[in-house]
Amino acid sequence: MTENSSATAFAPATVANLGVGFDILGLAVNGLGDTVHVERQATSGVIIADIIGDNGKLPRDPQKNTAAVAAAATLRLLGADFGVRLTLEKGLPLASGLGSSAASAVAAAVAVNALAGELLPRHELLPACLEAEAVVSGYHADNVGPSLLGGITLITGTSADDIRHLPIPPSLHLALITPAIAVPTVEARAVLPQSISLHDMVHQTGAVARVIDALYRGDIHTLALAMEADIVVEPARAHLIPHLDALRFAAKRAGALGLVISGAGPTLAAICIDQTIAKRVADAVCAVYESDGITCTAHVSSVDEAGAKVINVVA
Amino acid sequence: MTENSSATAFAPATVANLGVGFDILGLAVNGLGDTVHVERQATSGVIIADIIGDNGKLPRDPQKNTAAVAAAATLRLLGADFGVRLTLEKGLPLASGLGSSAASAVAAAVAVNALAGELLPRHELLPACLEAEAVVSGYHADNVGPSLLGGITLITGTSADDIRHLPIPPSLHLALITPAIAVPTVEARAVLPQSISLHDMVHQTGAVARVIDALYRGDIHTLALAMEADIVVEPARAHLIPHLDALRFAAKRAGALGLVISGAGPTLAAICIDQTIAKRVADAVCAVYESDGITCTAHVSSVDEAGAKVINVVA
Repeated sequence: MTENSSATAFAPATVANLGVGFDILGLAVNGLGDTVHVERQATSGVIIADIIGDNGKLPRDPQKNTAAVAAAATLRLLGADFGVRLTLEKGLPLASGLGSSAASAVAAAVAVNALAGELLPRHELLPACLEAEAVVSGYHADNVGPSLLGGITLITGTSADDIRHLPIPPSLHLALITPAIAVPTVEARAVLPQSISLHDMVHQTGAVARVIDALYRGDIHTLALAMEADIVVEPARAHLIPHLDALRFAAKRAGALGLVISGAGPTLAAICIDQTIAKRVADAVCAVYESDGITCTAHVSSVDEAGAKVINVVA
Repeated sequence: MTENSSATAFAPATVANLGVGFDILGLAVNGLGDTVHVERQATSGVIIADIIGDNGKLPRDPQKNTAAVAAAATLRLLGADFGVRLTLEKGLPLASGLGSSAASAVAAAVAVNALAGELLPRHELLPACLEAEAVVSGYHADNVGPSLLGGITLITGTSADDIRHLPIPPSLHLALITPAIAVPTVEARAVLPQSISLHDMVHQTGAVARVIDALYRGDIHTLALAMEADIVVEPARAHLIPHLDALRFAAKRAGALGLVISGAGPTLAAICIDQTIAKRVADAVCAVYESDGITCTAHVSSVDEAGAKVINVVA
């Protein structure tokens, strides 16, 4: 095993669900994400050296921090005879619906694997990332899958074979708007209906089928319409996002083709055909929030095809 | 308006649902279907001159016969100042899960349109076919859509814009086995669950997404697996198809990649990679039925890309 002394990795934010694709679709976002730096230490286990950018909100206990859990799990997968000191630099707001915990976990797993000369192929890190994600939001791959592997992914299980890359329409741009309101994933899950009518199930399967078909045809107008055609999850969560109707209206008036809740929210993801429109949409949506005294941050982005990446390795 | 004196049209059988795609997916079957012959008459309205091959089971009342209802609706769409005498030749068994009523309706609509020199483009006949289908099994396009338009179709509504052609994997062959047992569509609908858990809905949307993805990639192994991954509709209907587990086992031992109930059954559709295997699968499934004293008919086929066609027109 190659034994480097330190490594740094970046893992992208993710938009899970893509509207109607609850728990089965997700995409990786260009440029936005978390960074983890690990230093080899002779003693086994994971020590959290520092966390930057979380305003002290994330647990420092390695058993409860997703980056540390993923690092420890990756060390186990590697059969490593060493441990790591880990520094997590949060580029993502917490509980924002952008896969913050997943990005931390993925960056940590990829960084630890880089210490060992990337001994494991990327997809073999998935179990370590899932183990970490389970600590905070359940054993789901809809954020860790695209963060680790990049692109737009269909996730129908928790093994790497259950994750499939879908085509990325070249003109797909995103405006991501995160208001300063808290929507914990646990609460966003609690409001979901426990049973769905057969009629609504048929509607949801049809809309998901249209999403996949539209991705293959590169038709982002139909893609946006189909993503928005969710009649099960969004209606249950809409009250957690103040002014959702007004925000959608403002986004579309500014040129967005559609707007959905990113993951469990509160971040909103608007589908746009170019960066200029996406910027205008982000400004328009933020203006609605700000008129209500809610501050917000916005990012204009596209799909990160590659997923997590090693930034630096020191031998 | 061109005014021909008689016309004959053929409309193919259809496999609705494709397993997990309940009410949203369907395909047209090569070579198997119903034929309708219409003769112009000066008086308006539709007269049923004859029905061949139904053993006297279909209604002769033009208000209740799908071919006659579709013919009358098409005459209205055309604004025709004439009527028709209609002869329906059933190539399909009734209530078999092969879209028998839809094929009759589509063949009638296409034949009447041919009398008028094909004045209406094919997709504009959809409302007439739906009106007829509504008389017997509800206002659904999952059989009339593929019968009229051909191919493998995604159906998310009742207008032509809601029907989309999906790619047809070149190696997709079908073994269609129809046992001599009756499963009326009404009964097959009555056994369906009225509510589904959120977990099961997520499973169904994921499996449908895999079906669409597999069609685009031409991967019929994954296609067959995903089609079979229905945990909502097939389990509710399985008791209407005697020996379903044994039949599936026999089909797979003979080389089928998967087996699903066609529409509301009792026809079974097995997915195979070539015609020789499909023939062997049909024989193996029929053998299971026949060992239980149930006679059955089988067809080996592929996807009909074109859908309904005009066979003959006399000016």
